[in-house]
Amino acid sequence: MTDTTARIDLAFEPSGKQVRVPPGVSIFDAASWNGIAIDSTCGGHGTCKKCRVQVTSGSVPASRHDSRAFTQEQIDDGWRLACLANATCNLRIDVPPMTTRPKAATVGVGRQVILRPSIVKRYLELADPSLSDQRSDIQRILDGITDLTEHYDPAMLRGLPAALRTSDWKVTAVVVDDRLVAVEPGDTTSRLFGIAFDLGTTTVVATLLDLSTGTPAAVASMLNKQQPFGADVISRISAVMLDPSALGKLQDLAHQTMQELAMEACEEAGVDPVEIYEISVAGNATMVHLALGIDPESLGVAPFIMTSQSFDDALAADFGVAIHPRGRAVVFPALGAYVGGDIIAGALASGMDRDKRLRLFIDIGTNCEIVLGDGNRMIATAAPAGPAFEAASIRCGMRAAPGAIEVVQITDNFDVVCGVIGDVPAVGLCGSGLVDAVAELARVGIIDGSGRFVSAEEASAIAPALASRLTDADGLRLFELATEAETGSDPVHLSQRDVRELQFAKAAISTGWQLLLEEFGAQPEDLQQVLLAGSFGTYLSAKNAIRIGLVPRLPVLRIVSAGNVAGEGAKMVLLSGPERHGANALLREIEYLELSDRTDFNDRFVDELAFPG
Amino acid sequence: MTDTTARIDLAFEPSGKQVRVPPGVSIFDAASWNGIAIDSTCGGHGTCKKCRVQVTSGSVPASRHDSRAFTQEQIDDGWRLACLANATCNLRIDVPPMTTRPKAATVGVGRQVILRPSIVKRYLELADPSLSDQRSDIQRILDGITDLTEHYDPAMLRGLPAALRTSDWKVTAVVVDDRLVAVEPGDTTSRLFGIAFDLGTTTVVATLLDLSTGTPAAVASMLNKQQPFGADVISRISAVMLDPSALGKLQDLAHQTMQELAMEACEEAGVDPVEIYEISVAGNATMVHLALGIDPESLGVAPFIMTSQSFDDALAADFGVAIHPRGRAVVFPALGAYVGGDIIAGALASGMDRDKRLRLFIDIGTNCEIVLGDGNRMIATAAPAGPAFEAASIRCGMRAAPGAIEVVQITDNFDVVCGVIGDVPAVGLCGSGLVDAVAELARVGIIDGSGRFVSAEEASAIAPALASRLTDADGLRLFELATEAETGSDPVHLSQRDVRELQFAKAAISTGWQLLLEEFGAQPEDLQQVLLAGSFGTYLSAKNAIRIGLVPRLPVLRIVSAGNVAGEGAKMVLLSGPERHGANALLREIEYLELSDRTDFNDRFVDELAFPG
Repeated sequence: MTDTTARIDLAFEPSGKQVRVPPGVSIFDAASWNGIAIDSTCGGHGTCKKCRVQVTSGSVPASRHDSRAFTQEQIDDGWRLACLANATCNLRIDVPPMTTRPKAATVGVGRQVILRPSIVKRYLELADPSLSDQRSDIQRILDGITDLTEHYDPAMLRGLPAALRTSDWKVTAVVVDDRLVAVEPGDTTSRLFGIAFDLGTTTVVATLLDLSTGTPAAVASMLNKQQPFGADVISRISAVMLDPSALGKLQDLAHQTMQELAMEACEEAGVDPVEIYEISVAGNATMVHLALGIDPESLGVAPFIMTSQSFDDALAADFGVAIHPRGRAVVFPALGAYVGGDIIAGALASGMDRDKRLRLFIDIGTNCEIVLGDGNRMIATAAPAGPAFEAASIRCGMRAAPGAIEVVQITDNFDVVCGVIGDVPAVGLCGSGLVDAVAELARVGIIDGSGRFVSAEEASAIAPALASRLTDADGLRLFELATEAETGSDPVHLSQRDVRELQFAKAAISTGWQLLLEEFGAQPEDLQQVLLAGSFGTYLSAKNAIRIGLVPRLPVLRIVSAGNVAGEGAKMVLLSGPERHGANALLREIEYLELSDRTDFNDRFVDELAFPG
Repeated sequence: MTDTTARIDLAFEPSGKQVRVPPGVSIFDAASWNGIAIDSTCGGHGTCKKCRVQVTSGSVPASRHDSRAFTQEQIDDGWRLACLANATCNLRIDVPPMTTRPKAATVGVGRQVILRPSIVKRYLELADPSLSDQRSDIQRILDGITDLTEHYDPAMLRGLPAALRTSDWKVTAVVVDDRLVAVEPGDTTSRLFGIAFDLGTTTVVATLLDLSTGTPAAVASMLNKQQPFGADVISRISAVMLDPSALGKLQDLAHQTMQELAMEACEEAGVDPVEIYEISVAGNATMVHLALGIDPESLGVAPFIMTSQSFDDALAADFGVAIHPRGRAVVFPALGAYVGGDIIAGALASGMDRDKRLRLFIDIGTNCEIVLGDGNRMIATAAPAGPAFEAASIRCGMRAAPGAIEVVQITDNFDVVCGVIGDVPAVGLCGSGLVDAVAELARVGIIDGSGRFVSAEEASAIAPALASRLTDADGLRLFELATEAETGSDPVHLSQRDVRELQFAKAAISTGWQLLLEEFGAQPEDLQQVLLAGSFGTYLSAKNAIRIGLVPRLPVLRIVSAGNVAGEGAKMVLLSGPERHGANALLREIEYLELSDRTDFNDRFVDELAFPG
């Protein structure tokens, strides 16, 4: 194992930027990650020889390509091709001025990404073959793109004779990474697209990106068609364990979901699917295993083993997405069975590896993933929160859809005011409404510190208006959040069991981040930011999350909703090859803490069940 | 273009062997090609670190892997991993004694091939996973084969969880080149197979090889099912030009041919096709293009352009051969549209690049390929011989099948004695019989130096027995080789037009080798060996080939039938990864002379029509 905590310092001139990166990263990637643009056309494969930099302090061994790009004197003076110069110690690096200004886009949590898509197009007007120039068709093209690549996909040869001869030898070469994958007749260089997938257990989102501008050309989303097999990953894994034929069905449903979204986005943007050469996929380990048709059983039972952490050479076709037949799929690697590619994507989009503040990243769901980092060290864990936040096990629970109570406030007059999604009467309670309801009732004292509803007498002493909402049914205490008069149908209740469910969930999560902080040797008050990822994080009230102890007791402005960071990460890797390397670096860098293995987890968990005083 | 004529000298100690190789070849390959065994388990990918040699004179830059395998002092002393040390100047190399003696097999024209198949199997007994060892399934395997590879085929992940768990974590890793392609339950290391295909225009031969011993386990052959589309490559290309749907049909027929042969060989050897991970294919450019479904039109018309010279990453499935689904196809590269992979395979099997004698390699067919070399320089061309040798355009012509006259002798008593294939009466005349008939009639004077049948009077003066066989029919002179009495049916004739056809064919070929000799600055009498490749070469009488001027006038022992060298080359690349590199080196090394481009070709051709005095 490499020492994942070691980092090195790189100082870039003339920008004066100082960055800390894991050892072994190329100077080109390190610069790109930090918004420092270095000339390049090949995207970092040592072929274009444009990414020339001078190492003025510290040393980097010369690569084989350096001896072709530089004189021995230049090499002795520290000149290197940045894409092949792997930094292993502290360096000072002079970056020559750019010949062209590269474009950049703002993605993720304020991340400025230099546009360096792995897909590069080059228009070529080739010489006709003759008896004195009998180069093969493929060689004729490769000779026109020597600065991009010398490799090609053999499957592309089939259409090649026609593409060249119908276009009068005027074609566009399509290079993905360091491989020629297609030759399109005519000049198609202005059309450069990719589709970023956020492959969620509940919702799947496809963003069709114009890679030449960094802007979305279309966005489509729908519920994951696997839903009939269960709301969470465990129920889908169980489905496969009970019936092996379910694996094929779940794979098909994932493919259908992704394919329908891709076609919808293409139609909206006026893009022919065969023009698309790359998709990216951010999903948890179970979603990725199922989509690839790999039995997920070992993810679901201890010791929680993945078949693979990475899926480096996947094709879009492996995900059932019918773009160009040789189109690739960039799949985010997974740290563990329960800290999947979606979290690596989120950590990338949140800049967990470069922000120097001590930050906590929490993605709340049935399984809650937590990452703690200070730009130097990162550590992650997964906490089994259970289904409370998806409101699946909640008496009046429902998804955050029209009719769901998403905000609950108790006024100074002890009125219960509910915010309902959509312009409709309340139907049920979603996750953020649950947190609000419990937090507000705990604040006014209707729920005590242990999570128990107080007695009718105690409630009356607080406020008769609230006491009147407390009832018993089948031996279970209920609090009426929305009355029959308000709903025009059944009332919406919060039950004692609902409160318990929330307590279990928040205790699992807070035990998780407490153990991470301990491991890090930090205190909760040291945290400078808490990022709440995912759609749930968007709607959660920071104040109430603090109140129930779901997040550390910090000034409320330090609790930030990060939005759909997994989807943002998926966009980033399409826009930038170096960011893709960044995602793989995160896999090596983030330490993983397995909670099932901790003997102290249960004790800590019980301690965390109560609400903070 | 690299200077293909430059060569360097390597001296190996303690064997004392001196070899000349093209610059840029690895020391490991150079040694292997010359029967000098160097330790290795990974087959030359820098992972096993066993191929340690010491360069004692001359210098080789250290590779990245050398710094891991050796101390700085050792590197300074010239120690290198032979597989990554590319020789670019004359070197003296010390090879340490082997820890195990590698097997070797004799293949091709006396070539001793060290068995280093690209397929390597390793039996593993893995530790069960646990909460304290949560490595992914694939990582657990990769950790057990770090000396072989760190890469894997992503498609293999699908079957991996079951393979590991049904076999109690006792499995065999299958590595092809530098990639893990499969994991088989249990210990299957003793089963290591490959199929070598000689994909001929007329006949296709499949040899199932046991790669652990180098011996054939089964051989199967049949006529190429593409035959109904024409006997030669031009007629098959024309078929596609006339009807684009013919391409798909021809591809299917090639696939059917190869698949039937593969299954027949598997059944005979008792090998399950999924146990086979690799095939090799030696075929001419048209056969390979058609089998891969690539339009061959541009091969058939000037300036004779290939879609690609190489097909490096092809799969057996691309040839319709249903072995292991991820099984590869090693395809011989082609030098030109008419000097295809079959000739590169033949040149490899004949050792054209290492035999220091001046040798001429001739593969006679409708298209005749000729290679001239002295182990230092090689030059090749293709001569349009036409269909005479396949006897397609010959009046009584037939394939070399039962009933074909394959030998013709005129005795001292002027009896005409015909050797017929099979224990049956003569039906027709095959190529070698045609050569014999014309050569014998020229010898006795019935055919004059210009190729004309002499007059009845002149014939009678030579021998009345021969004169009586000369007749005229429809204004065409005929010579009766086999009478009605002998055939029990129609007589077998040689016509004046047949003689002309043979003259055209032999003139094209002799013009070809004469121009090569001129290009080389050598005289015919300098030739120390003429290799006649292919089945036709096997049956041709060397004496008569000389007599008609098909081959240079040399002592008859210098004319050697080389047999099916294309098929032998196909076997060699399955038995040895270094030989595969050798085939690719030949592609770069052999110079190509295009005859269509020579203004002097027609004049020379006319000069060559006559029979030598």
